[in-house]
Amino acid sequence: MARQNIFDNDEFFKGYKSLRDKEVNANNLFEIPTMHSLLPDLTGKRVLDLGCGFGEHCVDYIKRGAVRVVGVDISENMLKVAREENSDPNITYLNMPMEDVAAIDETFDVVISSLALHYVENFKGVVEAVSGLLTDGGIFLFSQEHPFSTCYSGKYDRWTRDDNGRKIYANIADYCVERRNDSTWFVEGVQRYHRMFSTTVNTLADAGFKIVKMAEPYPTEELVDKYPEYYDLYHRPDFLFVKAVKQD
Amino acid sequence: MARQNIFDNDEFFKGYKSLRDKEVNANNLFEIPTMHSLLPDLTGKRVLDLGCGFGEHCVDYIKRGAVRVVGVDISENMLKVAREENSDPNITYLNMPMEDVAAIDETFDVVISSLALHYVENFKGVVEAVSGLLTDGGIFLFSQEHPFSTCYSGKYDRWTRDDNGRKIYANIADYCVERRNDSTWFVEGVQRYHRMFSTTVNTLADAGFKIVKMAEPYPTEELVDKYPEYYDLYHRPDFLFVKAVKQD
Repeated sequence: MARQNIFDNDEFFKGYKSLRDKEVNANNLFEIPTMHSLLPDLTGKRVLDLGCGFGEHCVDYIKRGAVRVVGVDISENMLKVAREENSDPNITYLNMPMEDVAAIDETFDVVISSLALHYVENFKGVVEAVSGLLTDGGIFLFSQEHPFSTCYSGKYDRWTRDDNGRKIYANIADYCVERRNDSTWFVEGVQRYHRMFSTTVNTLADAGFKIVKMAEPYPTEELVDKYPEYYDLYHRPDFLFVKAVKQD
Repeated sequence: MARQNIFDNDEFFKGYKSLRDKEVNANNLFEIPTMHSLLPDLTGKRVLDLGCGFGEHCVDYIKRGAVRVVGVDISENMLKVAREENSDPNITYLNMPMEDVAAIDETFDVVISSLALHYVENFKGVVEAVSGLLTDGGIFLFSQEHPFSTCYSGKYDRWTRDDNGRKIYANIADYCVERRNDSTWFVEGVQRYHRMFSTTVNTLADAGFKIVKMAEPYPTEELVDKYPEYYDLYHRPDFLFVKAVKQD
């Protein structure tokens, strides 16, 4: 199985970094606040971050009281930034695909993944590996692109617009066909894996997880007043969050 | 809170019954087989059926070994058919809204509801009532209209079609706006309540349920060969199923 390492593509990396450096973006407005609202108390906890990227989250977990953080990413480009900008004696950055984390010889109290799992073909394999690395009662918390978004294949327009160009509805096709979708995001051929809601839920249940919270963040009215372009998220949320507890 | 009792509208009732009497319909092809595949072993079990309608499921549960079945429906029209066509000494039919089932003075091992919960405004209240009626380890299994369907408001076309009239994508608007949608189905003003996936999942989790299975049924290739009109369900499934276990 070929594993995508798009973040080591220089052109993609530059585009992605410039987007993340913008002050107002969907990550800052929705993804990060929602993730924070779902974080368990990390005091004294050992944390694994899957797809840690630049490592900003890893240092934040240390500040929140984690005693040990392991950040895993497939991209050495990303980890180079992480080691330069977000190092800490209690953080270890590992360059490996998420699919290989079962090889890590430690256990964790919390496993977190921010916007990475939609890049993974073998979701079941990763969820089972996470289950194996977590202590009983441990938390698995992740965000991913929403199934409404991963199901977009690039073969049609994402949106139907009115005569004024305003988005009036999201176009959804082949939601029930689970597949890899190659779309263009800075570069051609960014591979995302589309999975139905039910597949995500069932994969977690089958691996011994109890889902305790799910979130599909959308803007407040105040935020839409300030940034009207985010009204779209009422039609089709960008992100899906799942918080699950490992049970016996 | 006004509770919809659309099944006691004679025109609606006639239209609905004629649809259900058709041999090939979405219920027979998808809803019923999926429900059967998710049913737990009912031998010796006490079963509550929420929105039991004509009672066909209730007699089926008895045939599958249930020792006691209570069927609840808001529509006396429906229960009249149930009592005539599907009576059994171990079945009791009760004419009450689902929102009132907390008043039932019995406990159950299994609570099942087929395509009724999208008519309920106070989903949280019903889920909490079900939790109260179930023994620990008891099963709550339900189907409802899929959130892709309940979010349809009647204010735009459900589908975008190509020049040959073939449906090419489902139109989704205001998925994140939870609300009552009044649409026309045999009669005007059929009220359905739209809830996001996350709300359904969180309501169950908050009431002490562990979700063990979710299903969004879609046709097999063989079935699409036979009934090409059902290809639409790949774009947008009609039904959502949830099977959950009550935990301490």
